[in-house]
Amino acid sequence: MAGGSGTRFWPLSRVKYPKQLISLAGEQSLVQQTVHRLAGLIPPRRILVVTAASQADAIRQQLPQIPTQNILVEPVGRNTAPCIALAALYLKKLDPKAVMAVMPADHLIQHTDEFKQALLMAASLANADDCLVTLGVEPRSPHTGYGYILLADEIAPLARLKAYKVKAFTEKPEFAKAKKYVAAGALWNSGIFVWRSEVILAALERHLPDIYKPLLGIEPALGIPQQESSLAGVYPRLPSISIDYGIMEKYSNTVVVKGDLGWNDVGSWTSLREVLPADDNGNVTLGEHLGLDSKNIILHSPHKPVATIGLENIIIVETEDVLLVCDADRAQDIKQMVDMLKNKGLEEYL
Amino acid sequence: MAGGSGTRFWPLSRVKYPKQLISLAGEQSLVQQTVHRLAGLIPPRRILVVTAASQADAIRQQLPQIPTQNILVEPVGRNTAPCIALAALYLKKLDPKAVMAVMPADHLIQHTDEFKQALLMAASLANADDCLVTLGVEPRSPHTGYGYILLADEIAPLARLKAYKVKAFTEKPEFAKAKKYVAAGALWNSGIFVWRSEVILAALERHLPDIYKPLLGIEPALGIPQQESSLAGVYPRLPSISIDYGIMEKYSNTVVVKGDLGWNDVGSWTSLREVLPADDNGNVTLGEHLGLDSKNIILHSPHKPVATIGLENIIIVETEDVLLVCDADRAQDIKQMVDMLKNKGLEEYL
Repeated sequence: MAGGSGTRFWPLSRVKYPKQLISLAGEQSLVQQTVHRLAGLIPPRRILVVTAASQADAIRQQLPQIPTQNILVEPVGRNTAPCIALAALYLKKLDPKAVMAVMPADHLIQHTDEFKQALLMAASLANADDCLVTLGVEPRSPHTGYGYILLADEIAPLARLKAYKVKAFTEKPEFAKAKKYVAAGALWNSGIFVWRSEVILAALERHLPDIYKPLLGIEPALGIPQQESSLAGVYPRLPSISIDYGIMEKYSNTVVVKGDLGWNDVGSWTSLREVLPADDNGNVTLGEHLGLDSKNIILHSPHKPVATIGLENIIIVETEDVLLVCDADRAQDIKQMVDMLKNKGLEEYL
Repeated sequence: MAGGSGTRFWPLSRVKYPKQLISLAGEQSLVQQTVHRLAGLIPPRRILVVTAASQADAIRQQLPQIPTQNILVEPVGRNTAPCIALAALYLKKLDPKAVMAVMPADHLIQHTDEFKQALLMAASLANADDCLVTLGVEPRSPHTGYGYILLADEIAPLARLKAYKVKAFTEKPEFAKAKKYVAAGALWNSGIFVWRSEVILAALERHLPDIYKPLLGIEPALGIPQQESSLAGVYPRLPSISIDYGIMEKYSNTVVVKGDLGWNDVGSWTSLREVLPADDNGNVTLGEHLGLDSKNIILHSPHKPVATIGLENIIIVETEDVLLVCDADRAQDIKQMVDMLKNKGLEEYL
């Protein structure tokens, strides 16, 4: 899933170069890392990329190893449920019994080996049953932005990783509930799912018929030249809903594989503190930093040295055509800045 | 006097482009403004510029109207007393009775008409007497970085401006004294002086013979091809001292012309608050500023828009090859940053 268009990494991320296409940690972009991470497990010809029309060219450039016909272009963004339904229909056509792994293209996973083991274990569970499998990770805090997975019985382990039946799945709970869930040993949903395509399609048919039926109607056009126009006719009318709210919260036969994945959804500039090493003063820098009494700076300036004096807890992002300097406690207001630029007609900076 | 090499406007000011050569307020550089300000009063052929070897090319470029032989190049910087002695000797050779006006090339004067009136009045006083005349301005605070002029009797006014005999001249007093002086109605010395060249030379002979005698020894070489080598032989051995400490504090027949010059020595980035208009949030910006909850920012970024979120009292200076972000209360530590760069061998950013 490589169609997101967030603004939280502005000004590095832009409309045409959203988060998954930029290099935040490491030389490769997040979508390149996502594909690269599957090396030895899933060959490029068996990887589908669902993306947005505005990003398709950049995706093809960054992922030359993926066959062109494997890049599915959504005419408009409709959140994750339609994206997954489209991919599942496409896969089922290729192989009715296909096991499908779904993963966001804009997350970071630092423990590749454990990730691969978890994915294999999830595939094995999904292959044997009509369950939906999700990869779960230890929560780091009662953050209200994630899905929480409450655990039921452990499943007899197939590998050294643990897997559990899921008692309940709650997307983005309130803080008090999130705290309770963390205390009860719940896991965060990583957003990585594994299931047979026919199983998720059956779930979509039952719980999200407004998405399932129109897409099933154009299923004959998938993989042939009519695909683009058929999608253009159907997609704009689909409801915009996430797979988490639309399916995961409702489905009863869900399983979680717990892994120490080094997973991070890198949701904002401040999340770089969690995934990049800091210097002795807590500064996390991509680029040359010349600091004098400067602490907890987040700096992205690959092409120009940045001197700072007496600064604390500041985000500095230098790009070719615009500069951002932001109180790190106000990182969530970068969206507001982008809206301001839009209202001022400064499209060139979006 | 255009030979200064300050670091307080780094990274805009550089070794080869110090403060007088950059555009801080207005399109022209400060040295261009200094020459331009004299239009109609002193023609370019009667303007001497004393500068440093490293800046001579840039000075010639920025001031094409000044005849090349009027640009005197000091082989090394020795503060203002040797600079003034050199210019006075040069002038005396051209005209023994010359009245000489001395002015720093890196100050801002916003009230040009009043400045010209003050200069004319000072010239008239200097022409009639063996006095040293200085232009004084109302102090804005008991700042310890300036010279304080204590007033004696008023001189019968020759114009609408007031002039006084000077009771005492004290360069850079301690804070308690500065406060006392301000309360007593003392003026700040603007660093702009007027005198006959023979008068200042007599004062130099008496009070700074270590400067006067060596320069007098090479006086025959001034204005001819031997000038450069003669200066190179003498200058490095001259003591480095300012005219304020060396002469003004000691001379007994000093006069001050008081003017509302709109004078500012623009001594640091924060001084731009005194000379440039601020927006409703107290932000002083040269360049496009996109501010969200940002107050009292000082911004210099002529070529790239700068977005700020939740910032207060911060200096941001964007240049082609380096960026500075600095707590405005720490502006004096920019010098320390420059020293740090020097120690790290990052000469290209100095």
